[in-house]
Amino acid sequence: MKNQAYRMAMLYDFYGDLLTARQKEFYDLYYNDDLSLAEIAENYEITRQGVRDIIVRAEKTLEDIEEKTGLIQRFHQTRATVSTLRELTSQIEAINRDRLKDGELEKLCTQLSEAMEDLERE
Amino acid sequence: MKNQAYRMAMLYDFYGDLLTARQKEFYDLYYNDDLSLAEIAENYEITRQGVRDIIVRAEKTLEDIEEKTGLIQRFHQTRATVSTLRELTSQIEAINRDRLKDGELEKLCTQLSEAMEDLERE
Repeated sequence: MKNQAYRMAMLYDFYGDLLTARQKEFYDLYYNDDLSLAEIAENYEITRQGVRDIIVRAEKTLEDIEEKTGLIQRFHQTRATVSTLRELTSQIEAINRDRLKDGELEKLCTQLSEAMEDLERE
Repeated sequence: MKNQAYRMAMLYDFYGDLLTARQKEFYDLYYNDDLSLAEIAENYEITRQGVRDIIVRAEKTLEDIEEKTGLIQRFHQTRATVSTLRELTSQIEAINRDRLKDGELEKLCTQLSEAMEDLERE
């Protein structure tokens, strides 16, 4: 479970709203607020195993959705391509700085970088 | 239903594998193979209304998922940003062609365009 916290946070970000209210609540407390199973159990007056079952089922639901849609995988590919775009833009900026010194080109590179920041926020 | 064919194709592309086997089958025949409700009904020996109910329920499921996750909306934003990146790259290419004539810059612009093609395939 918690050894995969990054992956779980990503799954939750993408598909969390497809969980039931209770699954969401427990998942959130466990992964985002970092409560232990025992702490959640105590707060909700159910067994530790009961909490565990709900979270494990939620994880399975999220993993199944990703396995079927592949949208997080697609997202990672996009991020990798954006890194390539950033690197290429840096190279253009460097050429301009060292050799071409064209103000208009510099401005376009800045705009490219801004658009890539948008991409990374999306 | 069919007046929203593009939207429906997109929903199916993103979330189709989350439908039941039967929902997928009918949705596919109706939207992708363009069969009528009556034709599907005849092939499967059920009523036209029965087919309609299954497809309408499938549509609702897909719409609910998008409403909760917003991933198609995010995808459209990404596409719009990629258009901006393309436009900026074209402007850099034009400056280079008209004024700077730098071979290395030209090569980088080609690589930028290729990376954006990757983004549009993802």
